[in-house]
Amino acid sequence: MTSALFRALFAPRGIALYGASGDAEKNTARPQRYLRKHGYAGTIAPINRARREVLGETAYPSLAAAPGEIDHAFVMVPPGDVPAACDECFARRVPVVTIFTDGFGETGAAGRKVEDALVAKARAAGVRLLGPNSIGLVSTSPATALTVNASLEIERLPVGSLAVVSQSGSLIGALLSRGAARGIGFSRLVSVGNEADLSVGELLELLVDDAQTKAILLFLETLRDAERLARAARRAFAAGKPVIAYKLGRSSAGEALARSHTGALAGDDRAADAFLAACGVLRVRSFEGLIESALLALGQRPPQGKRVAMMTTTGGGAAVVADPLGAAGVELVAPPHGLGRRIRALGVRVTDSPLIDLTLAGTRASVYGPVLEALLASDHSDAVLAAVGSSAQFYPELAIEPILAARRAHPAKALAVFIAPEAPASLELLARAGIAAFRAPESCADALAAFCAWRAPRIPPHADSVPAARSAEALFAALGIPQAPTQRLRTADDPIECPFPVAIKIASPDIEHKTEVGGVELGLRDAHEATAAAKRVLERVRAARPQARIDGVIAASMQTGLGEAILGYRHDVQVGPLVLVGAGGTLAEVYRDFALRIAPVSLEEAREMVAEVRGFASLAGLRNAPRGDLEALARAVVAFSRLVTRPEVVEAEINPLLVKAAGEGVVGVDALLVLRG
Amino acid sequence: MTSALFRALFAPRGIALYGASGDAEKNTARPQRYLRKHGYAGTIAPINRARREVLGETAYPSLAAAPGEIDHAFVMVPPGDVPAACDECFARRVPVVTIFTDGFGETGAAGRKVEDALVAKARAAGVRLLGPNSIGLVSTSPATALTVNASLEIERLPVGSLAVVSQSGSLIGALLSRGAARGIGFSRLVSVGNEADLSVGELLELLVDDAQTKAILLFLETLRDAERLARAARRAFAAGKPVIAYKLGRSSAGEALARSHTGALAGDDRAADAFLAACGVLRVRSFEGLIESALLALGQRPPQGKRVAMMTTTGGGAAVVADPLGAAGVELVAPPHGLGRRIRALGVRVTDSPLIDLTLAGTRASVYGPVLEALLASDHSDAVLAAVGSSAQFYPELAIEPILAARRAHPAKALAVFIAPEAPASLELLARAGIAAFRAPESCADALAAFCAWRAPRIPPHADSVPAARSAEALFAALGIPQAPTQRLRTADDPIECPFPVAIKIASPDIEHKTEVGGVELGLRDAHEATAAAKRVLERVRAARPQARIDGVIAASMQTGLGEAILGYRHDVQVGPLVLVGAGGTLAEVYRDFALRIAPVSLEEAREMVAEVRGFASLAGLRNAPRGDLEALARAVVAFSRLVTRPEVVEAEINPLLVKAAGEGVVGVDALLVLRG
Repeated sequence: MTSALFRALFAPRGIALYGASGDAEKNTARPQRYLRKHGYAGTIAPINRARREVLGETAYPSLAAAPGEIDHAFVMVPPGDVPAACDECFARRVPVVTIFTDGFGETGAAGRKVEDALVAKARAAGVRLLGPNSIGLVSTSPATALTVNASLEIERLPVGSLAVVSQSGSLIGALLSRGAARGIGFSRLVSVGNEADLSVGELLELLVDDAQTKAILLFLETLRDAERLARAARRAFAAGKPVIAYKLGRSSAGEALARSHTGALAGDDRAADAFLAACGVLRVRSFEGLIESALLALGQRPPQGKRVAMMTTTGGGAAVVADPLGAAGVELVAPPHGLGRRIRALGVRVTDSPLIDLTLAGTRASVYGPVLEALLASDHSDAVLAAVGSSAQFYPELAIEPILAARRAHPAKALAVFIAPEAPASLELLARAGIAAFRAPESCADALAAFCAWRAPRIPPHADSVPAARSAEALFAALGIPQAPTQRLRTADDPIECPFPVAIKIASPDIEHKTEVGGVELGLRDAHEATAAAKRVLERVRAARPQARIDGVIAASMQTGLGEAILGYRHDVQVGPLVLVGAGGTLAEVYRDFALRIAPVSLEEAREMVAEVRGFASLAGLRNAPRGDLEALARAVVAFSRLVTRPEVVEAEINPLLVKAAGEGVVGVDALLVLRG
Repeated sequence: MTSALFRALFAPRGIALYGASGDAEKNTARPQRYLRKHGYAGTIAPINRARREVLGETAYPSLAAAPGEIDHAFVMVPPGDVPAACDECFARRVPVVTIFTDGFGETGAAGRKVEDALVAKARAAGVRLLGPNSIGLVSTSPATALTVNASLEIERLPVGSLAVVSQSGSLIGALLSRGAARGIGFSRLVSVGNEADLSVGELLELLVDDAQTKAILLFLETLRDAERLARAARRAFAAGKPVIAYKLGRSSAGEALARSHTGALAGDDRAADAFLAACGVLRVRSFEGLIESALLALGQRPPQGKRVAMMTTTGGGAAVVADPLGAAGVELVAPPHGLGRRIRALGVRVTDSPLIDLTLAGTRASVYGPVLEALLASDHSDAVLAAVGSSAQFYPELAIEPILAARRAHPAKALAVFIAPEAPASLELLARAGIAAFRAPESCADALAAFCAWRAPRIPPHADSVPAARSAEALFAALGIPQAPTQRLRTADDPIECPFPVAIKIASPDIEHKTEVGGVELGLRDAHEATAAAKRVLERVRAARPQARIDGVIAASMQTGLGEAILGYRHDVQVGPLVLVGAGGTLAEVYRDFALRIAPVSLEEAREMVAEVRGFASLAGLRNAPRGDLEALARAVVAFSRLVTRPEVVEAEINPLLVKAAGEGVVGVDALLVLRG
């Protein structure tokens, strides 16, 4: 079931080309050349005031003059001429206009304005835009190679079932060419450019309904319109079409350490991780893993665990995969007793190592095949890795046939094959049989790790709504998170009622880091000490920040706990509401030791989050340390995640949140609340 | 200048084969087939009591019967027959015996005993052993393909200047085949097996003197005879032959968290890191990076910094390299002002982004070449990355020629080329011209990061010798590391002389983790509190560990500092003396936040180590926190590293070592010393 939009994008009856060059050497001649080269069967109408013909096709002075059904216009004219070209398309209500030209929203405010105006006019005309700054798209069947990407010089389009949606134009070519060389084919490849109108999410939706597409690969530089992307990813999951993403931005991580609040902690690539995981998207971290892992996930549902069984004829060849696989947190599992016995009966030495090494002797099909079948049939693992040695290089059929046969007999279990030598023919044989095959051990480990981490899209739990409150204290009290008793003192001499010992802190909306200006004193045991401290604090802060507004000081009962946590909530502009729990203290930001999820979360998810934070190890009983109340901490995470019901809350944080002994709860010491507007 | 040993290994005049099969299909027929297939010109003497001829060569009933100069014997007989075969070789004093047969030291004590006996006999006879459990070796010129590795089915040996020494036999084949497919050739490839006699280090020495070898690649599973390896690596460095290592074992890291002492912290893969870096060895983390990075380092000396300049015609293609490169800590640098202007004059848009993106328009040689030349000529970077798009796939000569020309004009600067599409012909053109070319962005980033981290072999500083001492306290005092005043109390009622407040800790040689048994009380303000605490401690520990020897309690003056560190020293069985400094506290082991070096270290190195520990950020002034005395900490590291002069010290640790305010020094609170025997 494909929509009119889908057909206009991928199977247009006629295509108008703005700016098509008559010089076949020029980049702007490519779409026309590629369309014909790869057998596009519809009308091609170059729009050119000066010429009657372009590369053998009749040219027209304007779109109005072009005959027939034009479903798609492709615009390559200079930026200044784009609006006029689009106006012609809007006037004729061409269903889709793809703008190759760049120099719009990506260049700044002026370009953004022109782009916004184009979108507004398109919407008014009922026309959809792809781009600007899109290198175009490719559909393999029916063949529609409507792109400037030079990878289309390829002899034949690699027809297949993978779709690619990419925020990088040039990389659709890199993926196409790498797939083609490996026997991996594509249904559609789209470069989304600036996503002024058609977004990654909407294209994903369209591809879910495309019968020729069985898995969808996303090359992402950023996340735009995450809500729609999330919806589309859920639909893809429901339709049994795995969505696999490669996303840039891992190394910006190091840059975001500047500030202490959740914003900085959550604003990095790990928010994207949390988002993609919640949508049921597999995230790979290697470029080739993007195409290679598709066959690993195709036809599969998310696994129960993270257990990989391994067999090989080359010990070293398996080790180079096992090493990064283990580092990625995947568990390598030895065969259980009964299975081990059956494999031993085939003449294979089985130890308690997770690796079943058949050695050179095991290259015989009579050994390799049955061992692989036994592993595929067993439920002690979530995926099987088979490594193959030199035989795959010189006798591809002989080396690969036992794998194909074992696969046919046991099609259900996820299977990855790593080939140690250079063996393109064997890689291709495997891919053509639908088996995930890898030439780099690291991308094999990456794909297996992504597969093992794959889970169904998250069903957000119900979140009880939170009553509105103006202060952080009132809001967090309404959430049921205990906080240290505090009291505002207008002057240093106000009587103190909250229990001693107390801390004295400056109260000022203008001072973010209080300790830096001498605005905090701790451990004050009685009223006498506290009053003296309050005076000192006020004096120091007034000297250090004469311009700051000062609302007196806060006295806060000092609390003790077994450990410190940070609890954060943020409505992220890219991915939406996030809840965070991490190790507290100054070093929280240094170690970036936190767990992040899309809010709200269930108690079970909150427990998972707490378990992910390495710094809570001692609170969980490491080295017989007294246990902290991590259950209360998990409940506090759930409570904090309910802030999603208060749309005015942009950001909230409790840091530190002290974790007391098991059964004694948690208590917040310092809080931050940022409201909209 | 090659030695007799080198010639017997790689250019033997005659080779005896024990266990050579007359069935060409059998694995044991391979060495004979491969030797002849690849043009071995010397004598081949199959030793076979039952046959007069094997695969067309005259066979002999014993080695004694074989005529001519036999420089090398290759043994493939069953394990039980190996000693007899070797005895024949020892009797004839064949210079080198390579044992393919496995089932010796790698299987356990019994196999180790047989192996040791073989080595002893070989030594007595002046014969050298390669293996056992070696798949053999390959020399490309003169051609000597003396191996069971099936990769030698290859049509022609890829002759070149890279040598491979591998602890995995099968992977010499994987490297050979991957190199051959890429236009990368080899001089020698050796599988060392169990290294019963000839070690990686000794082979490395031999290859330093081999005129045909220009770089040496090590595939390591472990480190054996590190001292010899270190010496050989230094010689290789002095000879201008880069040594590049891939070492397994990264993921065992997670397993070694069990114990708190330095042993566990240092016993992991990071000790190998410290060792290889100190030897001037480049360490790569991707398998293909091992062969690909050789051309990056060849002809180079270690760089000054970690700065990479990047240019591309495909933004996405560069980003997929830049992302992992940034994550690896490499700095991507934009061109300085003057250079930026010159590049702009070529019609290229230069921003303050570190990436010079020529876009599609820049594929012209008239742009690509001059920009690359300008980057290669500039000294603002330590290496240049050039990314190439689709043109490399379809027009390899056109796309690659400007790179070759720029390289010829500027041969000095390190250059890496990443090709975004599948483009084997372009990769090969580059490799044949000696330019490092990469097909996976991750291994490109890996190789560049390894290159940027490459430093000359370390010159160990002089270490003043430390006087012998029986107790940790006395030893560390002799090193000039202040320690908290302590006092042994035989009974709880002994008068306490060390300054209050104090901590009371159980004194027992049998109790490692004192807090686990209630053996510690802190913050005791006077004699009354301390005495009561000492009684409780003794009572609890006697109840919890009735069998433990108890020597009373220790009273220790409580110390305060701005932060905690851990200081460790260990004579590692693999890599030798190591000194460690890390963030202290319970979480030290959780975050594994420490720096490690081969001991002794200079003050400058110690400062570098302190700067590497992320947890010291607050002591270094993060968020205006008061600065700690990190200079005193660095001096303590230097002092601790002098333990290398006390050979009886196996392990030493101060944890915690409190770091006081700047200028106020450090003080050790708890110490551990393990002496030999």
